[in-house]
Amino acid sequence: MAKIQSSIYGVFFVFSVILNLYCFINLHYVGGGVGGKGKQLSWTQKAAEEAEAVAAVSCSGHGRAYLDGFSVDGKPICECNTCFGGPDCSAILPCFGDPLFLEPFWMEHAASSALVVVGWHRMSYTFNDHSFISRNLENHIRKYTPLPRTLLQMEVYALSPENSSSPARVVASIPYFPLYGTQTDYFNSVNFEFEGDASSWMNTTSSDSSSNVIEFVTSPNNPDGLLKKPTIQGSTVKAIYDHAYYWPHFTPIPAPADGDLMIFTISKLTGHAGSRFGWAVVKDEGVYQRMMTYMSLSEMGVSRDTQLRALKLLKAVVQEGNGKEIFDFAYKTMRNRWEKLRQVISMSKRFSIEESPPQFCIFSQKVRGSTPAYAWVKCERKEDKDCTAVLRAANIIGREGSRFAAGDCHVRLSLLKSQDDFDQLIHRLSNLISEEDGTSKLCEEDHNNQHFVDYYKYYCCI
Amino acid sequence: MAKIQSSIYGVFFVFSVILNLYCFINLHYVGGGVGGKGKQLSWTQKAAEEAEAVAAVSCSGHGRAYLDGFSVDGKPICECNTCFGGPDCSAILPCFGDPLFLEPFWMEHAASSALVVVGWHRMSYTFNDHSFISRNLENHIRKYTPLPRTLLQMEVYALSPENSSSPARVVASIPYFPLYGTQTDYFNSVNFEFEGDASSWMNTTSSDSSSNVIEFVTSPNNPDGLLKKPTIQGSTVKAIYDHAYYWPHFTPIPAPADGDLMIFTISKLTGHAGSRFGWAVVKDEGVYQRMMTYMSLSEMGVSRDTQLRALKLLKAVVQEGNGKEIFDFAYKTMRNRWEKLRQVISMSKRFSIEESPPQFCIFSQKVRGSTPAYAWVKCERKEDKDCTAVLRAANIIGREGSRFAAGDCHVRLSLLKSQDDFDQLIHRLSNLISEEDGTSKLCEEDHNNQHFVDYYKYYCCI
Repeated sequence: MAKIQSSIYGVFFVFSVILNLYCFINLHYVGGGVGGKGKQLSWTQKAAEEAEAVAAVSCSGHGRAYLDGFSVDGKPICECNTCFGGPDCSAILPCFGDPLFLEPFWMEHAASSALVVVGWHRMSYTFNDHSFISRNLENHIRKYTPLPRTLLQMEVYALSPENSSSPARVVASIPYFPLYGTQTDYFNSVNFEFEGDASSWMNTTSSDSSSNVIEFVTSPNNPDGLLKKPTIQGSTVKAIYDHAYYWPHFTPIPAPADGDLMIFTISKLTGHAGSRFGWAVVKDEGVYQRMMTYMSLSEMGVSRDTQLRALKLLKAVVQEGNGKEIFDFAYKTMRNRWEKLRQVISMSKRFSIEESPPQFCIFSQKVRGSTPAYAWVKCERKEDKDCTAVLRAANIIGREGSRFAAGDCHVRLSLLKSQDDFDQLIHRLSNLISEEDGTSKLCEEDHNNQHFVDYYKYYCCI
Repeated sequence: MAKIQSSIYGVFFVFSVILNLYCFINLHYVGGGVGGKGKQLSWTQKAAEEAEAVAAVSCSGHGRAYLDGFSVDGKPICECNTCFGGPDCSAILPCFGDPLFLEPFWMEHAASSALVVVGWHRMSYTFNDHSFISRNLENHIRKYTPLPRTLLQMEVYALSPENSSSPARVVASIPYFPLYGTQTDYFNSVNFEFEGDASSWMNTTSSDSSSNVIEFVTSPNNPDGLLKKPTIQGSTVKAIYDHAYYWPHFTPIPAPADGDLMIFTISKLTGHAGSRFGWAVVKDEGVYQRMMTYMSLSEMGVSRDTQLRALKLLKAVVQEGNGKEIFDFAYKTMRNRWEKLRQVISMSKRFSIEESPPQFCIFSQKVRGSTPAYAWVKCERKEDKDCTAVLRAANIIGREGSRFAAGDCHVRLSLLKSQDDFDQLIHRLSNLISEEDGTSKLCEEDHNNQHFVDYYKYYCCI
């Protein structure tokens, strides 16, 4: 009896010791990593728990809670995708659409993109080398734009002549991003003036070969997605290439970007519009120095918090799938959306979309079509002079053509929305197109000369 | 014998079970908190480990490693306080001094100020209410500046008249922060012009009562720490109060700030100069709207990453000691530094410092002296016309008086350095003063009229 009892004790004892061993390993396991148990944490534990708690809030799959959002009774509140509303984001609303097409990528890669910022991170005005720019971040950016001189800056203020008696003339070609004009006009500088459309300005009396000209070349263009070249040539002409959309998920990349002054942003690369982070590639030493002066006078560089975040995101981009995964994800998303959109529009005689021909892409090493960030939609009927209103009546919200210096038979629709909001767009557009009848007169029937075709391209039915 | 063996088994078994119980509680303890074991983490674990590893790097107590710094062989490299150098920050160097006086506060409160930012945090252009400003952050800011309308903005661009035929005249009173002039001149706007010293401009022919005037009133002043009021009065005069230093650790607060347009920053409140984050309090609806237009045209608001960080810091400030601890820490630090500096300067006939009289402080509810961010030092000897050079020869680096539109017998020394760098300053200043002899002629001996006293106050020996 005693022997049996002793054996039972023995079995329990061995089991208990094994359990002790397991516990010990668990408590002191040093490997870390997602899913497994990591090192025991000290001062980061609370912040990590808070972040995970907010991330775990479910909003019917149509929204998310944020760490800096409000709480009700200690529970973080849902912030819904724009086409959805209500406390749990289950109600459907008319909507514009936030540019969240890459959010699922980052949700999937929460671990590689998570970042702990401590209270004492980078409190100083400058980095250790007395600059306003993180050299580590600059190195990462150079992986995407391997060119001579890189400058980080939220916006380029101006590229204006020194010691000139007349202001530089700032132009762009229609349709153009409206901010160029409003920004240039607003700052009301003695050094430059906005003149609007490049071609039209060339034909005015105020243009002559001695004028200093700054041309904004947005390529791919916002709103129509076309690859662009400068309209005006000459020794006194400087082009600012806005390459916000020059990424392989939006356009075939025919050649590496190589302008003298080019602007990039993470907004359309990683999808982080809210970070307001961009950089410029500048070849001319003098222009670079003037931009550095501007930066030191305006804001003493980009917030170190933003730079830290941009670095973490770019590191995550490089880490996932050897830097290709985000481009694959983004391209597949855009291609899928364009396929759906083209399919719907092909059923319509009332609406058309601007398309550019397929080109060879050095990134994917094949000929491929364009999948721009926006659809530049046109209402083809004579009576649909206000295309935005036509779409708005069907709960589709776009930007009027006149905001891009084109006619209001054009509307820009964003395809960078969350999947939710995009699905709503397609659904509403399908419904609208299914109600079409063929009785209205189409605009093309009036065309009979080249001038009209040009006019029609940017403007509308007359 | 079997009984003894059984008893021994029993004791071990009970011990083992207790150990298992301990392990179980440890592994599944749900309370969290610093020092104790927290919840098991998933996607935040790796980021938390990385942050703790970087924070644990020792740099001889004279520096720290950052998450976005470089690594050598996987080990993050030290970034030293400016008076120190070498791989482990043990070498002493000539130095300027980073404004890190509050770094020890944040090192002590690492847990309450730590923040996890996930990849999908705030990717959109706008917050949920279509604004560029986190309402939660705004609510926290209102705790410090409980006034009608608050606007977050890195800098105020201008406060210029609408539809006026002549530009607004921008002035400040000597000695003033040099950025006002260089910034206003650089942007070269049609709407405003920098005119320099307010009093001098009042005496020129270009001033008349109909001129639109914008006066920068920095209070406490940079560089001399004095509380200031506008120099020019009138219906066409608008004052921009730069209240960057209007915190109880720098000055007695005689009354709540109540200007029509006031600028604040966390740079001198929490010590985070690198975050480039500030806000303005604006009473006039029209001015507020113009500033909103500026913001939407320039940068579409402050980076969401920076706003998230500012919110976390302000929350931590409120949390620690009911919002008083940071002010206590900062005031004690500044008072201690001023005591040491006054003691050293009191041994000198060669150097003097600008001092303002004690005042009643509504924050501490007692009469107290000023403890400004900078010492406005003056060289009193006729031959020390370049005071900056005198100090630089003793390895003390300050900013020349001429950079504040004053004479070069003045130097601004920063007292916001790290403790390390401040100790070096005192040490070097003591050495310099201990070498003084009394043979040089002092400047005061020449003074004999009021005009000269005024001149002498801002300028130098003649």
